[in-house]
Amino acid sequence: MKTSARLYKSVNTIWDSYYRHPFIKGMADGSLKVDKFKFYMIQDYIYLLDYVKIYALGIVKAKDERTMQGFSKMVDNILNGEMDIHRSYMRRLGITRKDIENTEASMENISYTNYMLSVSQLGDLTNLTASLLACMWSYFLIGSKLSKIKGAVENNFYGQWIRGYSSKDYERETKWLIDLIDRLTVNISENKFKELEKIFINTSKYESMFWDMAYNKGM
Amino acid sequence: MKTSARLYKSVNTIWDSYYRHPFIKGMADGSLKVDKFKFYMIQDYIYLLDYVKIYALGIVKAKDERTMQGFSKMVDNILNGEMDIHRSYMRRLGITRKDIENTEASMENISYTNYMLSVSQLGDLTNLTASLLACMWSYFLIGSKLSKIKGAVENNFYGQWIRGYSSKDYERETKWLIDLIDRLTVNISENKFKELEKIFINTSKYESMFWDMAYNKGM
Amino acid sequence: MKTSARLYKSVNTIWDSYYRHPFIKGMADGSLKVDKFKFYMIQDYIYLLDYVKIYALGIVKAKDERTMQGFSKMVDNILNGEMDIHRSYMRRLGITRKDIENTEASMENISYTNYMLSVSQLGDLTNLTASLLACMWSYFLIGSKLSKIKGAVENNFYGQWIRGYSSKDYERETKWLIDLIDRLTVNISENKFKELEKIFINTSKYESMFWDMAYNKGM
Amino acid sequence: MKTSARLYKSVNTIWDSYYRHPFIKGMADGSLKVDKFKFYMIQDYIYLLDYVKIYALGIVKAKDERTMQGFSKMVDNILNGEMDIHRSYMRRLGITRKDIENTEASMENISYTNYMLSVSQLGDLTNLTASLLACMWSYFLIGSKLSKIKGAVENNFYGQWIRGYSSKDYERETKWLIDLIDRLTVNISENKFKELEKIFINTSKYESMFWDMAYNKGM
Repeated sequence: MKTSARLYKSVNTIWDSYYRHPFIKGMADGSLKVDKFKFYMIQDYIYLLDYVKIYALGIVKAKDERTMQGFSKMVDNILNGEMDIHRSYMRRLGITRKDIENTEASMENISYTNYMLSVSQLGDLTNLTASLLACMWSYFLIGSKLSKIKGAVENNFYGQWIRGYSSKDYERETKWLIDLIDRLTVNISENKFKELEKIFINTSKYESMFWDMAYNKGM
Repeated sequence: MKTSARLYKSVNTIWDSYYRHPFIKGMADGSLKVDKFKFYMIQDYIYLLDYVKIYALGIVKAKDERTMQGFSKMVDNILNGEMDIHRSYMRRLGITRKDIENTEASMENISYTNYMLSVSQLGDLTNLTASLLACMWSYFLIGSKLSKIKGAVENNFYGQWIRGYSSKDYERETKWLIDLIDRLTVNISENKFKELEKIFINTSKYESMFWDMAYNKGM
Repeated sequence: MKTSARLYKSVNTIWDSYYRHPFIKGMADGSLKVDKFKFYMIQDYIYLLDYVKIYALGIVKAKDERTMQGFSKMVDNILNGEMDIHRSYMRRLGITRKDIENTEASMENISYTNYMLSVSQLGDLTNLTASLLACMWSYFLIGSKLSKIKGAVENNFYGQWIRGYSSKDYERETKWLIDLIDRLTVNISENKFKELEKIFINTSKYESMFWDMAYNKGM
Repeated sequence: MKTSARLYKSVNTIWDSYYRHPFIKGMADGSLKVDKFKFYMIQDYIYLLDYVKIYALGIVKAKDERTMQGFSKMVDNILNGEMDIHRSYMRRLGITRKDIENTEASMENISYTNYMLSVSQLGDLTNLTASLLACMWSYFLIGSKLSKIKGAVENNFYGQWIRGYSSKDYERETKWLIDLIDRLTVNISENKFKELEKIFINTSKYESMFWDMAYNKGM
């Protein structure tokens, strides 16, 4: 079995709970309070500024030009693609760049991003890639799931979020990351797999905490 | 004002809450349930294995031999001094090395240590030193506070913990760390101070979470 | 005086020797043996694959979005701009990707890139930026100097190299880096300046060694 | 075959040249000019201050307590053991701590230590261990070889150096490092071996350059 498939099995239960999360269900049926989404948007923007650093570190830890190019494209995708969804919402919500700079990252946010930064700096490219996977992949699955719910994609407010994370572009980027972990881990030892699985489970837990934090507006 | 004094002012309220924490009050009057302490001991042992890595990284980031020697001595103090208190309790509690290896670090534990590892790898020696300070210093203050409570030091079980963290040795080590941050930050800019203050506040919050986790046995 | 101007004064003599280097004079008057240039091209391509990693690390060490964007653009410039000059020469010279992968980096090459990687990982963003400066800046000055020599820019073979490193694009990128070091070092201490100066002098020496290595084809 | 044995085969020729090096032959028969040795001592002291950092980084990258303890002991051995040989020579030669602080590391020195620091920070514990190996191991072999030459150990001046690097203590430490690389690399892939071999060959070349530099007093 491919590493990605084995990893998925380890977090199956955690990930299933995402779909039932009130924040995500609220985006699906449009009932999510805007102030919760606004809080989330700002925290997620702060999050992405660190998340993109892990991809940049991927350029540093990569051992061949093709992989470096791949990570470089992802840095560009996030800074100029994914974050454009955020910037668009920010305009709609009247959030300024100053607002973001003046907002403190929540402890859940800080814990998640510094965990990824720590394991990526200490470990090799497989550790780094494993740390990126839960965010990227679960967002694609959530986006896809929501996109199949009647009316969700057309929703005047949350539709843009759902369209972004279920788009062909985002799917291709997610697939790149999944293929990368599979390519890098052909013939890894069972010990190494356990190490990557631990990272994947931890980041999946951090995803849960992030959704909780967003729903509770950090309180 | 010295940096350490300014930093202390920023966490005053958080640190005061440590003394009122049921876990710490329970050690002071001997009423803390042993199973909670046992849970804490194992988590703290796992914590120290990462905490000592920050000191080791201090050797790497230090720019002169004297500071390298200082960090090297701290690595030795923790691996062979502070952790001996833990090893002694473990014998009393029947905790084996296998038990520790088989115990998962809690998410609070993981978040705290990886935060320190991340800011210490990304930043310079002042960031690293700031990240070490809350644990070292607050433990000394807690130990000292408890040592003045009648009967606490003599307590058959928790007395050893209190004696360890209020000892002359531990005081000298704490003073070394405080002096170091003061020495390294003479004439730093206000922006740099804000950066260190942020680290100091965050680690102080992680200390709170760690005590909560210990008291609730991770649940 | 701006940091960049002070730094320049420290390497003045070393940099002047670049212009008199037989490799560079050979490109200026077209007399440089093609096999020397071919050797250089391959080594420089290998060099750039590491040099770009320092810029990627700049994204990681940067503390604000604007600076992250700047470094990200530079990563893209190098991977898809500067290296295109190399790829074009490679086609002309019949150098394949396989040739590059099969070529060992020379010890001068390895020493230079690992020096930059080491000081950039250990230090803060100013150290990292200082380590990038000698290569970027001296190439622009060499390109500009050569572009003013009669016939050099029009040279059928070496003209493309000279046009690349004296282009408006390359000038703008160089200026970005110089402005960055100046912006990051307003009000730094004299000790910190000495540290950056040391990095700048060392990388300037590595530049000299690299030209020597190229001219002697690594022997 | 064990990794260490395979690695040794790759550098056999380079290492054989150490024994024939005029600097080492000069220590063996006592004919080495003292000013060359003095130059070497100061550069080697500066070198060790960085070399010990790689061991400290080993504590950070190690994944179990036993390995952390091993690296910690090595840090102590170097700072308080190996460097004591140097300190003793310094007293004999009238070299003060100030002299060392005022001496610039040579480019060969800088290149070697930053190479080790770079590959150790970027790579995993096997890369780090491989980078330490050439210095430690070749010094033991040189020390042992010289110790068997009639009169060498008894030499009033160079005898102490030879006794230090052929001592039981130094042998045990070297053996620890060799055993470590063998333990860490059981079942590694051929690609990974090639990576470690590259590091081992490069550091062996840096050793050669260091002896040349010492003999020529950096000129």
